Amino acid sequence: MDIKLIQFSPHGDDRGQLVALEETREIPFPIKRVYYMYKTVPDAVRGKHAHRKLEQVLVCLHGSCKVRLDDGKEKQVVLLDKPWEGLYLSNVVWREMFDFSPDAVLMVLASDYYDEADYIRNYGDFLAFLRKQSEKEGN
Amino acid sequence: MDIKLIQFSPHGDDRGQLVALEETREIPFPIKRVYYMYKTVPDAVRGKHAHRKLEQVLVCLHGSCKVRLDDGKEKQVVLLDKPWEGLYLSNVVWREMFDFSPDAVLMVLASDYYDEADYIRNYGDFLAFLRKQSEKEGN
Repeated sequence: MDIKLIQFSPHGDDRGQLVALEETREIPFPIKRVYYMYKTVPDAVRGKHAHRKLEQVLVCLHGSCKVRLDDGKEKQVVLLDKPWEGLYLSNVVWREMFDFSPDAVLMVLASDYYDEADYIRNYGDFLAFLRKQSEKEGN
Repeated sequence: MDIKLIQFSPHGDDRGQLVALEETREIPFPIKRVYYMYKTVPDAVRGKHAHRKLEQVLVCLHGSCKVRLDDGKEKQVVLLDKPWEGLYLSNVVWREMFDFSPDAVLMVLASDYYDEADYIRNYGDFLAFLRKQSEKEGN
């Protein structure tokens, strides 16, 4: 599956903790957009889509949440509960975020501006997109 | 003083809250670096510098903290306690962050990579930098 858990290096000292993320360095793409979710209700499921092109890194800055991942072949669940750990997701991963703790702050760094046309919001369309991609690669 | 409180538009729905920040749009510069502070000790003072060029936007994503600002003429203190509010700081503002709540997560979006040469860490040097700048502008 085209995902990766990235361990960042916290710059801790007697004042507290600090994590710094630079584009094309700790983050493997240019950072065009930063968004964050908070006050998520306990039973909410967010995401439920894949992307045509967008790459993202998810970091849970406070509290915790889980991410269900599916690339059409495998499924897995990743727990995010460390501000010094990022979850890189390529475009071709169906993602669902759930089990947010009441104090969770989930930050996402994205490789591009918001573009509704880049979202694949239907799971059947996602599987069709994957088939098309693997046909292309097969040629 | 060359600072600005920016009100973002939270995209709230029945799942919770989401704020999205795009470079050169909500954020008035390209986002090269994202850093965040957490587990800050109660009496810590962070910052204590200005910059030669760097622009930043500070957002307190969880909990609260205060920022003491000084442009060599005026001083003021800004409370950051809303995830939908950003504090834009130009380079020529001496900034000190303090009074972090135990659960505070302060995120900073920066217009460039980390560069120690861009920091002005001595207050006397900061005043000298301001004088030089206003002489230049006067010419």
